[in-house]
Amino acid sequence: MAESDALTHVRPDGAAHMVDVSNKPVTARIASAQAVLHTRPDVIALLVAGELPKGEALAVARLAGIMAAKQTSALIPLCHPLPVSGVTVDFTTDESSVRIVTTVKTTGVTGVEMEALTAASVAALTVYDMIKAVDRSARVTDIEVLSKSGGASGDWSRE
Amino acid sequence: MAESDALTHVRPDGAAHMVDVSNKPVTARIASAQAVLHTRPDVIALLVAGELPKGEALAVARLAGIMAAKQTSALIPLCHPLPVSGVTVDFTTDESSVRIVTTVKTTGVTGVEMEALTAASVAALTVYDMIKAVDRSARVTDIEVLSKSGGASGDWSRE
Amino acid sequence: MAESDALTHVRPDGAAHMVDVSNKPVTARIASAQAVLHTRPDVIALLVAGELPKGEALAVARLAGIMAAKQTSALIPLCHPLPVSGVTVDFTTDESSVRIVTTVKTTGVTGVEMEALTAASVAALTVYDMIKAVDRSARVTDIEVLSKSGGASGDWSRE
Amino acid sequence: MAESDALTHVRPDGAAHMVDVSNKPVTARIASAQAVLHTRPDVIALLVAGELPKGEALAVARLAGIMAAKQTSALIPLCHPLPVSGVTVDFTTDESSVRIVTTVKTTGVTGVEMEALTAASVAALTVYDMIKAVDRSARVTDIEVLSKSGGASGDWSRE
Amino acid sequence: MAESDALTHVRPDGAAHMVDVSNKPVTARIASAQAVLHTRPDVIALLVAGELPKGEALAVARLAGIMAAKQTSALIPLCHPLPVSGVTVDFTTDESSVRIVTTVKTTGVTGVEMEALTAASVAALTVYDMIKAVDRSARVTDIEVLSKSGGASGDWSRE
Amino acid sequence: MAESDALTHVRPDGAAHMVDVSNKPVTARIASAQAVLHTRPDVIALLVAGELPKGEALAVARLAGIMAAKQTSALIPLCHPLPVSGVTVDFTTDESSVRIVTTVKTTGVTGVEMEALTAASVAALTVYDMIKAVDRSARVTDIEVLSKSGGASGDWSRE
Repeated sequence: MAESDALTHVRPDGAAHMVDVSNKPVTARIASAQAVLHTRPDVIALLVAGELPKGEALAVARLAGIMAAKQTSALIPLCHPLPVSGVTVDFTTDESSVRIVTTVKTTGVTGVEMEALTAASVAALTVYDMIKAVDRSARVTDIEVLSKSGGASGDWSRE
Repeated sequence: MAESDALTHVRPDGAAHMVDVSNKPVTARIASAQAVLHTRPDVIALLVAGELPKGEALAVARLAGIMAAKQTSALIPLCHPLPVSGVTVDFTTDESSVRIVTTVKTTGVTGVEMEALTAASVAALTVYDMIKAVDRSARVTDIEVLSKSGGASGDWSRE
Repeated sequence: MAESDALTHVRPDGAAHMVDVSNKPVTARIASAQAVLHTRPDVIALLVAGELPKGEALAVARLAGIMAAKQTSALIPLCHPLPVSGVTVDFTTDESSVRIVTTVKTTGVTGVEMEALTAASVAALTVYDMIKAVDRSARVTDIEVLSKSGGASGDWSRE
Repeated sequence: MAESDALTHVRPDGAAHMVDVSNKPVTARIASAQAVLHTRPDVIALLVAGELPKGEALAVARLAGIMAAKQTSALIPLCHPLPVSGVTVDFTTDESSVRIVTTVKTTGVTGVEMEALTAASVAALTVYDMIKAVDRSARVTDIEVLSKSGGASGDWSRE
Repeated sequence: MAESDALTHVRPDGAAHMVDVSNKPVTARIASAQAVLHTRPDVIALLVAGELPKGEALAVARLAGIMAAKQTSALIPLCHPLPVSGVTVDFTTDESSVRIVTTVKTTGVTGVEMEALTAASVAALTVYDMIKAVDRSARVTDIEVLSKSGGASGDWSRE
Repeated sequence: MAESDALTHVRPDGAAHMVDVSNKPVTARIASAQAVLHTRPDVIALLVAGELPKGEALAVARLAGIMAAKQTSALIPLCHPLPVSGVTVDFTTDESSVRIVTTVKTTGVTGVEMEALTAASVAALTVYDMIKAVDRSARVTDIEVLSKSGGASGDWSRE
């Protein structure tokens, strides 16, 4: 079994705490995550090729994702602060959705999957913020880790 | 048609900006949103009634959601700062998922759906952070606004 | 009995939440709080009249307190954000202690005692940070609200 | 004389404090400010029409300015927190410089010139961050308030 | 004499500055601190075993302390940013008080006593926030460092 | 040619991203920057030797600059987070201007010129905030990097 069988962040007495990672080795780490926003085709058209200059709206979401990655440890209570050394946020659109894929790198003692997930989530919420006047029913789904490498638990990819 | 036909936050020249809401009336506003985290039944069991003292893990996620609601305008680039006047974050679990429902209130000039969505998203990511050692494949879906009231555009509920 | 008989911030099911203050009236409010730092007489001498140019060390602590008052709702999880409209941080020293008194004002729907307490606490910790090389045993005591006025519960002073 | 003859933020004893604005009226307020970044013509060419897709680099700086406007009271120690109700950040380029003009609106008790200045400054520093690999000698000048309106001191424009 | 005889953070000209720690070695460091909140016995009863589900109120304070530890360098002006690698916040209650003990770990160039003190202080203020409706006279005392280890100055414990 | 011929932070497709610095070596780095505030001689007189206790107003600006240096990566979107290991902020005045010189040190993988520039800019804006009641026309100019050392690109000074 590749995974530990205990929930982390919880002590024998049940109290939440930030787990001690003092003794973990410093290694290069990468994590990739995604989020998918579903909306109407006419909104995708507006977003991608329509009244908006190409990229401007997605540029806002991309920046929001990158900046959120740096705030992850302030948002997720038990997450360790990490010196993020690289972040990319990419968008692909199809007829009625925008897929956001993020990649975060660090050289540190813990993984960066929370940073990748936070970047993807905040980028998706930012797209929603920019389209909510035309589609308040838009929905974000499939927020998940795609892959991670580095660290004691070895490389992993969602098959 | 109840909704505007233009994307907000973007000017005629395509430049992003924080839209001027100086002339909008101050009214009581409420928004409710959700997020759903999917995991394995044994993880739900651990989370809810198992090795964890009841409520502690969810208490962490609840706090994370409440605190994130207050940081929304710092995370979503074009979102207006708002004096949040009340936040609740609730959890319901079934066999293999946790549903998070948030409600945010304000007395202000803009709606609070972004605050409700941010609270739900960060609460869900926090649950993921606490279970990722036992299920790194867990996924967050169905982040969406459930209802909003107050403001010029009238009350609205997802049917 | 001037005080409510129930703990706030807790719902019937025990879940923490930010209590709804939407219906509370907007009024002028003031709160004053204190903290006292105890150290050795020679450290007080250094701090006040000795090797340090007058006021510089306390100027750092004063600024820290003022800036912390503005961050209160980001630090105290269930505290409502408030537009702070005035803050003072004052110091008085005797032979072996520094007393910090803060006063915070707002025009809003909730009191500002948490802001006054946070300003006093952070100012005291900042003084500690500046003297810890010469007295790591210094201690902060007597953090408490001195008075508050404005709001439904009426004026109050610690007798 | 239109201006007060005393420095604000300073008490008779010289201690810094956040001045009490509790009794100032709530009015609509606007302030505009600028910053100018000087670089080489070839860098302007790269920035505006060259290897960069139009707008992307400036889009980053625009977002940085807007987001910084919302953080002004956390950066400027004695600045009052304000509910920013609108922000624009515009760029005009000539042969060897980029001029950034910001406009910030609020409905509040104090002016928003610090918000406008902060937005202009951070946008300019962000442009520098993006060109420093090709011109580390670039310089930012002429950070100043262009105009303000609303509030007791009346409207004002730099002649 | 184990301690330096000069106040840190102050230059010969008296100007505050963040002292240069570039040349200090990176070592494992631990600090422990405490704060004690005094209230009435009936409030302790409510807090611990009474109308509140066990742990929920203290869970809020615990999270507040952990999250505050990560914000220490943003609160204490001359404090160096540190990658916190572990935090625990524990509570013990007697008839009329709650004692909060925090432990913070890092691998870095400066000690973590300010982080431990900040965690203890904010946890104590959060407990106050949750009981102030029933005891606004509650008081926080005895904020102090209990022990520290790692670093050039050697291990130390309050006797 | 000592400098790269491509703008950083931009990918072939023009999308902004935080560049990957995972493989850059950790070295000691120093950067120095400046900003100059121009005002009237009578304001300089008030600021330096007049009604203000010496240093207090500048002490506020100094602290603001030091604290801003620590927030640089949260303000400049594509800037990497860095563990700042030392900051100084110095002022020199002549008849009608205040010159602010900052020095920032780190041991890390990227330079600290953005931290030095941010410290200088925020210190200058803070001085403006404190004198704007008597000279709203004051202007900040000459924000620039003075020198940097450490890192692959070698030492550099503005001649």
